[in-house]
Amino acid sequence: MSAPYKLASREHKKEDTVIALPNGVKIGGREIAVIGGPCAVESEEQLMRTAELVSRAGGVMLRGGAFKPRSSPYSFQGLAGEGLILLAKAGAAYNLSVITEAIDAPSADLVARHADVIQIGARNMQNFALLKHVGRLKKPVLLKRGLSATITELLLAAEYIMSEGNEQVMLCERGIRSFDDSTRNLLDLSAIPVLKARTHLPILADPSHGTGFRELVVPMARAAVAAGADALMVEVHPEPESALSDGTQSLHPAQFVEMMNALTRVAHAVDRSILAR
Amino acid sequence: MSAPYKLASREHKKEDTVIALPNGVKIGGREIAVIGGPCAVESEEQLMRTAELVSRAGGVMLRGGAFKPRSSPYSFQGLAGEGLILLAKAGAAYNLSVITEAIDAPSADLVARHADVIQIGARNMQNFALLKHVGRLKKPVLLKRGLSATITELLLAAEYIMSEGNEQVMLCERGIRSFDDSTRNLLDLSAIPVLKARTHLPILADPSHGTGFRELVVPMARAAVAAGADALMVEVHPEPESALSDGTQSLHPAQFVEMMNALTRVAHAVDRSILAR
Amino acid sequence: MSAPYKLASREHKKEDTVIALPNGVKIGGREIAVIGGPCAVESEEQLMRTAELVSRAGGVMLRGGAFKPRSSPYSFQGLAGEGLILLAKAGAAYNLSVITEAIDAPSADLVARHADVIQIGARNMQNFALLKHVGRLKKPVLLKRGLSATITELLLAAEYIMSEGNEQVMLCERGIRSFDDSTRNLLDLSAIPVLKARTHLPILADPSHGTGFRELVVPMARAAVAAGADALMVEVHPEPESALSDGTQSLHPAQFVEMMNALTRVAHAVDRSILAR
Amino acid sequence: MSAPYKLASREHKKEDTVIALPNGVKIGGREIAVIGGPCAVESEEQLMRTAELVSRAGGVMLRGGAFKPRSSPYSFQGLAGEGLILLAKAGAAYNLSVITEAIDAPSADLVARHADVIQIGARNMQNFALLKHVGRLKKPVLLKRGLSATITELLLAAEYIMSEGNEQVMLCERGIRSFDDSTRNLLDLSAIPVLKARTHLPILADPSHGTGFRELVVPMARAAVAAGADALMVEVHPEPESALSDGTQSLHPAQFVEMMNALTRVAHAVDRSILAR
Repeated sequence: MSAPYKLASREHKKEDTVIALPNGVKIGGREIAVIGGPCAVESEEQLMRTAELVSRAGGVMLRGGAFKPRSSPYSFQGLAGEGLILLAKAGAAYNLSVITEAIDAPSADLVARHADVIQIGARNMQNFALLKHVGRLKKPVLLKRGLSATITELLLAAEYIMSEGNEQVMLCERGIRSFDDSTRNLLDLSAIPVLKARTHLPILADPSHGTGFRELVVPMARAAVAAGADALMVEVHPEPESALSDGTQSLHPAQFVEMMNALTRVAHAVDRSILAR
Repeated sequence: MSAPYKLASREHKKEDTVIALPNGVKIGGREIAVIGGPCAVESEEQLMRTAELVSRAGGVMLRGGAFKPRSSPYSFQGLAGEGLILLAKAGAAYNLSVITEAIDAPSADLVARHADVIQIGARNMQNFALLKHVGRLKKPVLLKRGLSATITELLLAAEYIMSEGNEQVMLCERGIRSFDDSTRNLLDLSAIPVLKARTHLPILADPSHGTGFRELVVPMARAAVAAGADALMVEVHPEPESALSDGTQSLHPAQFVEMMNALTRVAHAVDRSILAR
Repeated sequence: MSAPYKLASREHKKEDTVIALPNGVKIGGREIAVIGGPCAVESEEQLMRTAELVSRAGGVMLRGGAFKPRSSPYSFQGLAGEGLILLAKAGAAYNLSVITEAIDAPSADLVARHADVIQIGARNMQNFALLKHVGRLKKPVLLKRGLSATITELLLAAEYIMSEGNEQVMLCERGIRSFDDSTRNLLDLSAIPVLKARTHLPILADPSHGTGFRELVVPMARAAVAAGADALMVEVHPEPESALSDGTQSLHPAQFVEMMNALTRVAHAVDRSILAR
Repeated sequence: MSAPYKLASREHKKEDTVIALPNGVKIGGREIAVIGGPCAVESEEQLMRTAELVSRAGGVMLRGGAFKPRSSPYSFQGLAGEGLILLAKAGAAYNLSVITEAIDAPSADLVARHADVIQIGARNMQNFALLKHVGRLKKPVLLKRGLSATITELLLAAEYIMSEGNEQVMLCERGIRSFDDSTRNLLDLSAIPVLKARTHLPILADPSHGTGFRELVVPMARAAVAAGADALMVEVHPEPESALSDGTQSLHPAQFVEMMNALTRVAHAVDRSILAR
């Protein structure tokens, strides 16, 4: 049986897709990119401090939510446009590419204008109207796997974007829903080799959302690299205990540095290296 | 611990919310409403035939997808605006209220203009931008539970709509994702009494998506009424075998009639009745 | 594709299997049997009071754990042989059949001697050595579905018993594991019509373990009957608040009576009746 | 809240438990042990060939099922006692420790006599009678996580063994049940760091059952080491295509060698090494 997706499949394109960003970052090649930043953009000071520590530790891209999809309407919803401007400023100051989430067509247009990569979050993985919209934009898209999405559904969601003309798509495993509350989500690392076999698109892992606890982030980041991830997306905050969201899963600055050192060694053990600029 | 949702909670409002529709249909009271129709609006002839059989059998509302969220971009995506016009025409011809799904802000505006109830599908349950948008419209909303959403998350999603000013919200259990492929989804009927205890909003069940097989629809529809559902949403098609989507779960016309008879008896056994016009 | 089980299949035996117990109780026919009793046998006084209330309310079989499979070795493990003797005595005093769980070969031999039905619990559904052992005994067996067992696996477990010569097997849906802690387990009522189509064996539901909360037991018991269950197994305790295990899911005596009345009505609505003696 | 388990907890015993086997193998220290062998013992020739290749490649323990818990009673059930004798012979011939599964008390007694480690399979993780029985034997026990067991339940199952006097327990993550059939089970590697924090017992991973496909075994074995596993259990067969069970997940001999080389490198990257004799 042939795959129900086409453009995303290995049959359609044998060689790995490499996505090149303006500041020279390439995702999908032999070098593994590390993306770091806070869950949410909270203030200029917070973001600048974070960008500096990500950059110093060897990260190449800055993440941070400006439009936050939160389970409750009463939770902090993000700084929106103002957050985008802070992200662009911090990225420029520390020569980091910038990725941030879009939650609808208007925010996607804004993100496309201010950031280097548009993120589609897990809760919107099957928001097909949004997928088609970003498929018509000229910016790379990072698509996160839904909380109960199969691998095939993830690839079909990518196909929605690609079939509109945008083939610059990256996929991100970020944990699925399970019955055990030992972790916030269940990071499905087997998705990495399964996806690498089925698609040419770059595959990322997010061990922060994937586990929900900072003590688990470093071992699972190491494991993701060992399993074949092309890039990692990790939450780090200058002061996690005072973060406005997801503080328990954000690394302390020193832990981020420790993680980079650990990943450098594991990457070499699998004949890859950590991308530096 | 108090609930993280407010407007949706029983603490906030003790008495059951009853949603009154233009043609006299009320959902949430002692009478149980039955909504019937095809998965997708395919043609005027198909829809008129379905509306007639729903009406004759005692159904009070017509369902049918005009904007279809499909896993694959290559599947039939619905008739869009044309489908809305056909739905309005069929509803008027047979004195049925009309419900259909919106998938983004523009389609929600269109649905609000042509239909009586805006449906938000399971894949968009945490599309918070869309929830906020329909929260600002003046139409009742039926919110379906996401495939791996907890009851609390479903109520928080309702809260997104209500906190924007639209308190006309109904909730629908339509099956969650499980490990057993004996059924398409796993209809969680315990969600009905759990929700009835926590919220004043009307609770529906969709045994068609909830099981995926027409042979299971009648027993599970009976069970949903016995568990306390305020309304049922059921797929029926004049010729299920030739349906453009979800044919295996659509009832034959005679089965829809049989179901109505069965539900009438079960409703009486729990001191309720089936709503007729 | 033909089913991987044989003796358990509808293809092998078209007509429903009816299991007749010594005191005249029949399970699997048009009449629905109600089994009641405490989670665990705690004392003679507790058990006698429970047997009396079950009998008065119209129940036909007494349940109660003597060998208790508990997650923790430090939890109450049951009265073992002494519990069996109390069960037999209480059953005789109130003309109730008796069912209790076996957890290994020696306890199965004891249960076979003192009780009318041997129960195999969810955690032992794939304890194949135990299944084979009870397959060689001459007593009816009630086999509960494992917490993450598929319908096919449940039928294959039944096949283990039947292929050893014991075809007196009943199956019981008792809730599966899910991601939502709104309920202790997720009672999968669609398993009832799915099983009725695939097998001739009687199908039971256990809304007590299936939900974990007494407020949910009556609506889910009603729903189970509406879905086609042949019998129900329900926990009831003279003083649930002081129960040694599972107190939150045990009905109060008055609730058990209320349930019997409710079930009588729903049974009639589906052309069945509640078995009385 | 303190943990519901005691003897298994880090609070009870801070230092890592190291389990020493007769042939000098130690599990739980800085060196990572690799266990290899077929799913089932099929014949002397098959087992001798496998033991030789495991030994040559650097494995230190031989696995192979003699008592096979199979979902269907009509599947190959293992060679039983004869299989145990073949295992002991092959282990002795190639200086490998031997591990094999017990499925009830009598088989546990036999395994304890002929093998070095008693395995309790996933389906028996909550077979408490069996846990207590092996708790009274003087042999190390490898306890596999059940298909839907939480981490806490796994530790409580270990506590059953330990509280009977046998503290030589190892835990093994082998994949849990999920909704996605891309893999046979879902290998939960986050269980490794979670367990390492909560317990002093050695933690193993089984990427063969954990994925079900041989192409996924090497990347997931690498990832398990990167996540902190103390040992790996991997299926290998001289001719996987002709294996009597689980052929699709058994490595070819050359892949086993390749895996050992890969693991050596990853182990060094996390300051550990692969145990050799």
